[in-house]
Amino acid sequence: MTAPVFPLPAASRDAIVRTALEEDLGTAGDLTSAITVSADATATAEIVVRKPGVMAGLDLAAAAFALCDGSLSIKINAKDGDRVTAGETVMKMSGPARAILTGERTALNFLGHLSGVATETRRLVDAVKHTEARICCTRKTTPGLRALEKYAVRCGGGFNHRFGLGDGLLIKDNHIIAADGIGAATRAAKKRVGHMVKIEVEVDRLDQIQDALEGGADVIMLDNMSPEVMADAVKLIGGRAVVEASGSITLDTVAAVAESGVDVISVGWITHSAPCLDVGLDFQGG
Amino acid sequence: MTAPVFPLPAASRDAIVRTALEEDLGTAGDLTSAITVSADATATAEIVVRKPGVMAGLDLAAAAFALCDGSLSIKINAKDGDRVTAGETVMKMSGPARAILTGERTALNFLGHLSGVATETRRLVDAVKHTEARICCTRKTTPGLRALEKYAVRCGGGFNHRFGLGDGLLIKDNHIIAADGIGAATRAAKKRVGHMVKIEVEVDRLDQIQDALEGGADVIMLDNMSPEVMADAVKLIGGRAVVEASGSITLDTVAAVAESGVDVISVGWITHSAPCLDVGLDFQGG
Amino acid sequence: MTAPVFPLPAASRDAIVRTALEEDLGTAGDLTSAITVSADATATAEIVVRKPGVMAGLDLAAAAFALCDGSLSIKINAKDGDRVTAGETVMKMSGPARAILTGERTALNFLGHLSGVATETRRLVDAVKHTEARICCTRKTTPGLRALEKYAVRCGGGFNHRFGLGDGLLIKDNHIIAADGIGAATRAAKKRVGHMVKIEVEVDRLDQIQDALEGGADVIMLDNMSPEVMADAVKLIGGRAVVEASGSITLDTVAAVAESGVDVISVGWITHSAPCLDVGLDFQGG
Amino acid sequence: MTAPVFPLPAASRDAIVRTALEEDLGTAGDLTSAITVSADATATAEIVVRKPGVMAGLDLAAAAFALCDGSLSIKINAKDGDRVTAGETVMKMSGPARAILTGERTALNFLGHLSGVATETRRLVDAVKHTEARICCTRKTTPGLRALEKYAVRCGGGFNHRFGLGDGLLIKDNHIIAADGIGAATRAAKKRVGHMVKIEVEVDRLDQIQDALEGGADVIMLDNMSPEVMADAVKLIGGRAVVEASGSITLDTVAAVAESGVDVISVGWITHSAPCLDVGLDFQGG
Amino acid sequence: MTAPVFPLPAASRDAIVRTALEEDLGTAGDLTSAITVSADATATAEIVVRKPGVMAGLDLAAAAFALCDGSLSIKINAKDGDRVTAGETVMKMSGPARAILTGERTALNFLGHLSGVATETRRLVDAVKHTEARICCTRKTTPGLRALEKYAVRCGGGFNHRFGLGDGLLIKDNHIIAADGIGAATRAAKKRVGHMVKIEVEVDRLDQIQDALEGGADVIMLDNMSPEVMADAVKLIGGRAVVEASGSITLDTVAAVAESGVDVISVGWITHSAPCLDVGLDFQGG
Amino acid sequence: MTAPVFPLPAASRDAIVRTALEEDLGTAGDLTSAITVSADATATAEIVVRKPGVMAGLDLAAAAFALCDGSLSIKINAKDGDRVTAGETVMKMSGPARAILTGERTALNFLGHLSGVATETRRLVDAVKHTEARICCTRKTTPGLRALEKYAVRCGGGFNHRFGLGDGLLIKDNHIIAADGIGAATRAAKKRVGHMVKIEVEVDRLDQIQDALEGGADVIMLDNMSPEVMADAVKLIGGRAVVEASGSITLDTVAAVAESGVDVISVGWITHSAPCLDVGLDFQGG
Repeated sequence: MTAPVFPLPAASRDAIVRTALEEDLGTAGDLTSAITVSADATATAEIVVRKPGVMAGLDLAAAAFALCDGSLSIKINAKDGDRVTAGETVMKMSGPARAILTGERTALNFLGHLSGVATETRRLVDAVKHTEARICCTRKTTPGLRALEKYAVRCGGGFNHRFGLGDGLLIKDNHIIAADGIGAATRAAKKRVGHMVKIEVEVDRLDQIQDALEGGADVIMLDNMSPEVMADAVKLIGGRAVVEASGSITLDTVAAVAESGVDVISVGWITHSAPCLDVGLDFQGG
Repeated sequence: MTAPVFPLPAASRDAIVRTALEEDLGTAGDLTSAITVSADATATAEIVVRKPGVMAGLDLAAAAFALCDGSLSIKINAKDGDRVTAGETVMKMSGPARAILTGERTALNFLGHLSGVATETRRLVDAVKHTEARICCTRKTTPGLRALEKYAVRCGGGFNHRFGLGDGLLIKDNHIIAADGIGAATRAAKKRVGHMVKIEVEVDRLDQIQDALEGGADVIMLDNMSPEVMADAVKLIGGRAVVEASGSITLDTVAAVAESGVDVISVGWITHSAPCLDVGLDFQGG
Repeated sequence: MTAPVFPLPAASRDAIVRTALEEDLGTAGDLTSAITVSADATATAEIVVRKPGVMAGLDLAAAAFALCDGSLSIKINAKDGDRVTAGETVMKMSGPARAILTGERTALNFLGHLSGVATETRRLVDAVKHTEARICCTRKTTPGLRALEKYAVRCGGGFNHRFGLGDGLLIKDNHIIAADGIGAATRAAKKRVGHMVKIEVEVDRLDQIQDALEGGADVIMLDNMSPEVMADAVKLIGGRAVVEASGSITLDTVAAVAESGVDVISVGWITHSAPCLDVGLDFQGG
Repeated sequence: MTAPVFPLPAASRDAIVRTALEEDLGTAGDLTSAITVSADATATAEIVVRKPGVMAGLDLAAAAFALCDGSLSIKINAKDGDRVTAGETVMKMSGPARAILTGERTALNFLGHLSGVATETRRLVDAVKHTEARICCTRKTTPGLRALEKYAVRCGGGFNHRFGLGDGLLIKDNHIIAADGIGAATRAAKKRVGHMVKIEVEVDRLDQIQDALEGGADVIMLDNMSPEVMADAVKLIGGRAVVEASGSITLDTVAAVAESGVDVISVGWITHSAPCLDVGLDFQGG
Repeated sequence: MTAPVFPLPAASRDAIVRTALEEDLGTAGDLTSAITVSADATATAEIVVRKPGVMAGLDLAAAAFALCDGSLSIKINAKDGDRVTAGETVMKMSGPARAILTGERTALNFLGHLSGVATETRRLVDAVKHTEARICCTRKTTPGLRALEKYAVRCGGGFNHRFGLGDGLLIKDNHIIAADGIGAATRAAKKRVGHMVKIEVEVDRLDQIQDALEGGADVIMLDNMSPEVMADAVKLIGGRAVVEASGSITLDTVAAVAESGVDVISVGWITHSAPCLDVGLDFQGG
Repeated sequence: MTAPVFPLPAASRDAIVRTALEEDLGTAGDLTSAITVSADATATAEIVVRKPGVMAGLDLAAAAFALCDGSLSIKINAKDGDRVTAGETVMKMSGPARAILTGERTALNFLGHLSGVATETRRLVDAVKHTEARICCTRKTTPGLRALEKYAVRCGGGFNHRFGLGDGLLIKDNHIIAADGIGAATRAAKKRVGHMVKIEVEVDRLDQIQDALEGGADVIMLDNMSPEVMADAVKLIGGRAVVEASGSITLDTVAAVAESGVDVISVGWITHSAPCLDVGLDFQGG
């Protein structure tokens, strides 16, 4: 796999991390370190993964420490997207003890959350690797973290669906209600949308597919269908559109869904409900 | 229970929601609604809870719609902190169809995430209600959302630990390494910290407790001990400090921990790994 | 034509206008009005178009006044996208004289700039209306104003190309150099890109088209070709991809380009070099 | 000519450029480069001017690349304010190919826009160089870019009028209506304004000049007068105030205006309607 | 006196107040009110001045309460610029008790600080009212509060010197060292500065005045001279420039300085060292 | 004394300073330096303390220069918290003359203001050094500067009270009115507040103390009592709570207050009314 590319310049990444540090530091700063650790104490520390998983956010974690003290020496031993095992050390640092202790929680919060997203994504990706199906995320992301969570999905081997309401049309049941049926909505969209924008139409019954295809849908989303019905849908569509499966797909059901022949399986919970990957900091006095 | 208080003024709450809307809208805006729904179409819609849980974030969700179009009529049928059952309608709105569709995802992302935190918190709170123990969160929060997640914990009947590094001293193993043992660290802290700041000391063995108490700790955190050892620790401390249990506590083990007599049980996963509560929007054409 | 939809919520629009007002007010505020106009003076005023054109930005202009004084009564007499003639009044307001004078320049700067973009776009759109070709903008926008300028293009009857680097692949000559030829670049893209992302490939010679088509390009951009060569390209492509013409197209040449049969004509200068539409404020003392 | 001074510290300049980069990158980042260019590909590239003009914004353009990747080696071959000829290379860079491609559009958007302003300014300045008249800009600038566009005017050899509503009084027709005639308005201003603030009064008839002078105007703006009437005004004023010509002055008419003896000629279109200078990036694979 | 004009739109004023509220509320909010006051408790309260002074910042104070709860009824009984006596009530409010208690400190911090500046300014203004001399502030302001402090100076009857480095030239001793003497520096400035910018030159000896005048200074600042020497300087200058006195001027010495005939007396301590005016909130349970 | 710790990372500190620089530079920049000083002029300069005091803000001052020009060589000769005498040089710098002149006022504004706070704090600390009493600040800070002013208090040897409304309960007279008496308010607080939050209760009569103690107050604030009554209160409390004295305490009265046996003396004016410490920049041409 080609390594995933972080979507923002270093300065923008640092701005995100700085905001998180400031959220943690408030106006008082790190009282505990200021009071219990002397200014010239040095230390070494390692970030260790406590459970197996897939890494995402290593540069953000490193930035949390570097922004606390530019004189820290930081070495990253893994790459975003790497599978790691329990006990593996993914980052080492040495330098001012206070800075390590101050940056610790912010670093681990980024790393644990994003690696959690990458890890769940990878589980799904692995579960369908005997098929051509792709695992893909949704817009069900944590407010403020969309760019990072979508990046974490890529780290887990997944693909990204739309990044927001502006990069792709997704005509869902509610739009179809507000418009005048699938055919009308899709034809209107085809006529009026920019030439770089794809049109996806959500269907929940097989008899809607023909309208969507005739309207010019690039992608058809099969919403909450059984794998058997999906297989029928795939046949019906016959390559005239990309087929996306969606709705309540779990690690248990994803293989069957993939085997139905769909091209893409979109899963909301890899971004909105992935548990944190357990990562910790082991600290040695200088 | 007294209803939880949202920590920020309405204008600050709206600023948070606006940032999330802008993340979703990008520079293109909601192409699908713009293209498939006419400007004068109206609709009614309801936010319905799909799984039982505890609500948190209703005002944020309402703000997501209100910021899209101030002319929407929005009625909130529940309060943050309320237990809700599957199928329950917690918000109704009517007005411009486009605004409902544009605000939908942002509203649900806030509501699902925060209600997820409240729901998991409430499960723990219920599991220990036969004791005096409190359930409490940590600083293991999603970057950028600490104020909201800590509020969601309160909605679930939990209590908040420190809001950041500046409102309380928490002398952990790493500080103790960087300082010179528990006694020295605690005494130094007692002498130098402001009079409104409490001092908590983390111990992982019973023989560290005496040092912490003599140093003047207000709170002693028992890290990763069994309920039996915790009971011994509680006896040893004998009311001279608040006792907090911490480390890998689950819904299965929390009752036993509470029964050990500790005052507070802090749990990181209610903020960093709570799954989203399933909430959806049911839309009716105007 | 369906009226263009402003891409952002009212609160976001007001935030943009407030930033512009603050740029004009600095820390001193509007000294001239403060000193020469009394606090209780009232006035009426009109925004009048001095040259024929197409409107864009009326709500932004109104917001500039409303943010200066919420008590102003403002009436907008036209819609964004409307063609207007010289002398036409597009907005009327009455209320505190100071607020009108303070908001004037900010309002006119938005309205003149965006209407300028809409007006130039409309000229091109009119020039090709005997064909099926669409006029479309590029990413050559003024830093900070992309959302607004792309909206202004829609007001002028144009379409939008990509909103940024993240909503569509555009494999240009430089990418082709950095990759390994058109075929390789396109095939790699097809394999790795998300299913909602279209792939466009820039070609400057006819013999590159086959590679692009085989690689799976959704759109082929003909860069700096003569209308005759473009007609050949259109024939060669034969409906297998959308065809976009690009490069130094002017009001004089656009009809010939459109008549070559291309689907889309992208023009950078409608956003980066459109002259301001001449709009002014006629003021009457209260 | 002394080289113009950029008005902001480097950190502030970089913040402006970062905002523009983020506008282009959205939450997805540069998909095309991520997908078609390998992480370790290197390249060299040059920014080449395609049409003769005057440079402005070279440091901003360089910052766009440097913020994408700090390891790029960038060499600027010209200075802001320099006249350049078609084909001239003004910047060279080498390093990671992706960073060059990602920063390209943002860099060129700044450089083209600001150099466009400088180039138009310089044309006017050259046209009046046989006189003492200065060319000067107005507050008719693009929202959000005033500091940069006013700097570009200086790069073109022009001077700046007020930077905003707070650094100078400009009593225009509308203020005179809201106040009680030129004399009253000017006298009130003279009495109440700070001692570091100059007072300019706009007149559109010769018979208003005496009132303005008696009121204490430092500068008199002749609005929309013919060169002949301006010459009369200059005589009438007789050195008792600076004389500024304003209103619909073009490259064709500016020399005649200057020859009327006015001190300053203010021109709105050099900031609001200057076409982009054509600049491009020539890219060579590493 | 004409009432001073607040320099910013209401939305900008509210943004400043909101930032201050958020500084006070942190991520936890107002714990004391949330815990000790019930949600439906109402109250009335008054802001009372405890010491005589001059008001500045009443709208900011009102905004602090209004932003906490839009349903509060707030009545302002005084105007910025008014002299008030000890015990005078300047604002009354009634409504939700929590909102009053939450907004109290932010409101009083703005009101006390700015009224302190206005009060000290007014003392100086009163002390020189038998002369024509104006009292004027400097750029020695509290970081982040310049617009507000300069406004407070106007509320106290004072005038404003430059608002920043960009609205006026002030050639001080250090510039003269960096340039090549007063004459050279002033002549260079005269030649190169915009026509709306005044030039002030600082002198500390009488023999420098002639150079400054010949160079074309609009204003001459007499730095740290005795009133006697200032009187000589005034004579020497003879109306050819505005004369400003500066340097260590106190309430005790200001009258003598004014009587020397200078036009303007600039005083740094009215902004950087004015003690807070004592204002308090008297609260009555609902 | 252990040196005070600056509460924020360097990047956050620089962001604060950059905002202040931009406030001073506006959109025009430093006109005087641009016009009177050549780009290649170099200089050396020193920051000299004109009156004895205690330093706070040296790093902020250095950042003001460094952000203007990263090539300046800056050497800080003192530490925050150091006592300095009149005439002492605390910082030296050499490099581009323009950058020194541009950064001067911002640097001195930070340094003078914060050192003023530290100096006044230190006077009070010195006045009570024969006792165990601590000097402590309040929330009466300048809007926007709380983190810095509280840091300056620490530089002066003082301690910090609450940083905001969220890190400690302070039940004041107004809360007691809104609740139902001291006992009820304190008991409610004790029951509902987080375990890391201390509870302080304000009393103004001795007969209120018993209720506060029984309610579980950690700290009792004696508001506006005479030293004699305070001594009685201290006896009554008998070590069961920390005792804080508050209200109109001056340099003249603070020793007597401290001798009453209170633990903490909180003083609002050290942050809201401390006069600036007189610091200046001595400049030598290069």
